[in-house]
Amino acid sequence: MNLIVKKYGGTSVGTTERIENVASRIIEDIKRGEVPIVVVSAMSGETNRLVSLAEKIDPQYRGPAYDMLVASGEQVSVALLAIALQKRGYKPQPLLAYQLGIHTDKIYSKARIQKIDGQKLIQFCQKGLIPIVAGFQGIDDEDNITTLGRGGSDTTAVALAAAIQAESCEIYTDVAAVCTADPRLVPQAKELYKVSFEEMMEMAGLGSKVLHIRCVEIAAKYGIRIHLRSTFESREGTWIVPEGEIMENPLVTAVTHDANTYVFTLHPTPEGTSFLADLFKKLAARGVIVDIITQSQTEKGQRLAFSVTKEDVPLAKQVLKETLPSTVNIETMEGMAKVSVVGMGMRNHPGVAATFFQILAQEDIPVQLVTTSEIKISAVISSQHLEKAAQKLSAAFSLVGGV
Amino acid sequence: MNLIVKKYGGTSVGTTERIENVASRIIEDIKRGEVPIVVVSAMSGETNRLVSLAEKIDPQYRGPAYDMLVASGEQVSVALLAIALQKRGYKPQPLLAYQLGIHTDKIYSKARIQKIDGQKLIQFCQKGLIPIVAGFQGIDDEDNITTLGRGGSDTTAVALAAAIQAESCEIYTDVAAVCTADPRLVPQAKELYKVSFEEMMEMAGLGSKVLHIRCVEIAAKYGIRIHLRSTFESREGTWIVPEGEIMENPLVTAVTHDANTYVFTLHPTPEGTSFLADLFKKLAARGVIVDIITQSQTEKGQRLAFSVTKEDVPLAKQVLKETLPSTVNIETMEGMAKVSVVGMGMRNHPGVAATFFQILAQEDIPVQLVTTSEIKISAVISSQHLEKAAQKLSAAFSLVGGV
Repeated sequence: MNLIVKKYGGTSVGTTERIENVASRIIEDIKRGEVPIVVVSAMSGETNRLVSLAEKIDPQYRGPAYDMLVASGEQVSVALLAIALQKRGYKPQPLLAYQLGIHTDKIYSKARIQKIDGQKLIQFCQKGLIPIVAGFQGIDDEDNITTLGRGGSDTTAVALAAAIQAESCEIYTDVAAVCTADPRLVPQAKELYKVSFEEMMEMAGLGSKVLHIRCVEIAAKYGIRIHLRSTFESREGTWIVPEGEIMENPLVTAVTHDANTYVFTLHPTPEGTSFLADLFKKLAARGVIVDIITQSQTEKGQRLAFSVTKEDVPLAKQVLKETLPSTVNIETMEGMAKVSVVGMGMRNHPGVAATFFQILAQEDIPVQLVTTSEIKISAVISSQHLEKAAQKLSAAFSLVGGV
Repeated sequence: MNLIVKKYGGTSVGTTERIENVASRIIEDIKRGEVPIVVVSAMSGETNRLVSLAEKIDPQYRGPAYDMLVASGEQVSVALLAIALQKRGYKPQPLLAYQLGIHTDKIYSKARIQKIDGQKLIQFCQKGLIPIVAGFQGIDDEDNITTLGRGGSDTTAVALAAAIQAESCEIYTDVAAVCTADPRLVPQAKELYKVSFEEMMEMAGLGSKVLHIRCVEIAAKYGIRIHLRSTFESREGTWIVPEGEIMENPLVTAVTHDANTYVFTLHPTPEGTSFLADLFKKLAARGVIVDIITQSQTEKGQRLAFSVTKEDVPLAKQVLKETLPSTVNIETMEGMAKVSVVGMGMRNHPGVAATFFQILAQEDIPVQLVTTSEIKISAVISSQHLEKAAQKLSAAFSLVGGV
């Protein structure tokens, strides 16, 4: 059987008309000989509606009841898509997490999948049924509903594909492809036809919103090829594949950005080796995710700078206030952004870093923090320079031009 | 343990404020020493919203996807009430049908409960958790969600009470009690403190909307005392109990009505004994529920009359058209209503029927159809006479006056 997992996101099932459109599209796929397993998100706006009900009662609460609440959104989409397929004379099998045994840990709202009964899914297909699976949800060892956090339905889709060793996993969304840069920032950005798992993981981690990093991690681990494409067009989009499938790597594959960055600078930091470990342990304990860290020596002592996302700023400030002696000067920089270049080709070409900094220097853009890996370079700069930086970097690395 | 099942209906949980109010009320009960098991309906309006989504895609469809869709409404209420209890420092256990093993047959949208794992429910209570159970839903033998049809959450509540042999089952609603007549029709109607199961079943079957007949049937079968009361007042409402608990029965306990009646008269009907059986078999096969049937001999042959509810009229007309030869004259009467008196005390007092018809005759109200049982008399009359009939019958049987 040519098993293909097909995931339709919130905008793809945002209205009953769109759900009917998805049903028609699935039927075209079946007529072409594919055996689809469909995963759906909640109708766009529905999860927010449910969250706002919970927040009216208790904005703080997270736990099993919260996950049960928000999981109802996917249940509605599953049922409606099944009704649309039934109307067209096909046999859907609507499925929730408990029916498929999508087992997760107990970390509510951010649960991780541990086991899926792939055999059951294959049996439905063998009977000629079209499984329609609720994304985003799982069950814990006590049969409570759990949810998988941001990008959860993509994660469900890739995990199902892994459990049944599907041919590939199609992620249908409202963008047609992964681009060399965000087209809102770099209008000349090109669509990418193939991207390696490693590059896509870096891009997701560096601000690309197209796919969540966890779904790409699972795809990479199990070698599931992801095909990201538009619900509203029939042409192919971007394939996310093992590196070996990409014949020749460009130096840089994409420029990504994250406009949601905030920098703290501490100066002078207390003497002694334990200070850094202490501080970052406390930040982690409060759930603050620290991104880039740099340290430098000045005549007045050590200067420490680190970046966090905007949402974590209030918590980070609180931790700093509780931890630091009053001798430490805390400087904060708002309105910062992170711009990065990513590419497998960088591994053997140290010249990329030189070009990167040269471009920023030519444009008089001050760099506050820098971090690099084998396949990426990131710099924190002022948001006001972001657009120019993204455009100049794209041009310098040949990422713009006709499709 | 003083186990009491408490069911809160759609208006009782219609807003987050009302859900918080229900949480407070449950906590008061706990402080009084009760061990509550809570059943909730969907927030009022929510089931209609879900149904209208399904109907946009396919107004005809009924099946597992439809039941999965509408069952999501109860899931939302369960989760929100659990969040409200958690906020107040209590430990709720939100539960859906699959978690409790509420097993039903496979008649989607009208499923009947076959088995409930009462032991699991008791274990939650023993651990100090407050079970919050989704009403209206079950699962079939393949783990698909089913729903129980009209009054489904009441049925869930009584069935849970039976499964754990609870002390009683409280049904919280937006009316304060069962009355001797519908107060909109008979403003002087009195509240009833105790009603027998048998009377309540007749009343539900004869148009009283307060409790669905199936929930009362289960209560009667397992001897579960139902306490129907208001969510918005703390006083007691009406107890529905075994007959033995009621010391003295009034002749007539209540006047009920159903304004939703339609009468067909066929004349002359075809000769031969098989005609009646054939006709009613065909009507039943199409799902038309025939209420009262009467037959009389005229000089021109047999005259048959029967009543159906308004919703079934188009289907009934179609069956008659397909079944009857053109020699049969079909007369239809719209705008009819059924008025009934119900009471255990009628069994030994044949005079009730005489009074009943005398009152209608005094008021010049023509009676079209009549049916009786040991504890009820029903007459189909014109809707325009309904209010007067209900008021005069209530007065004649001492069912009006101060509470």
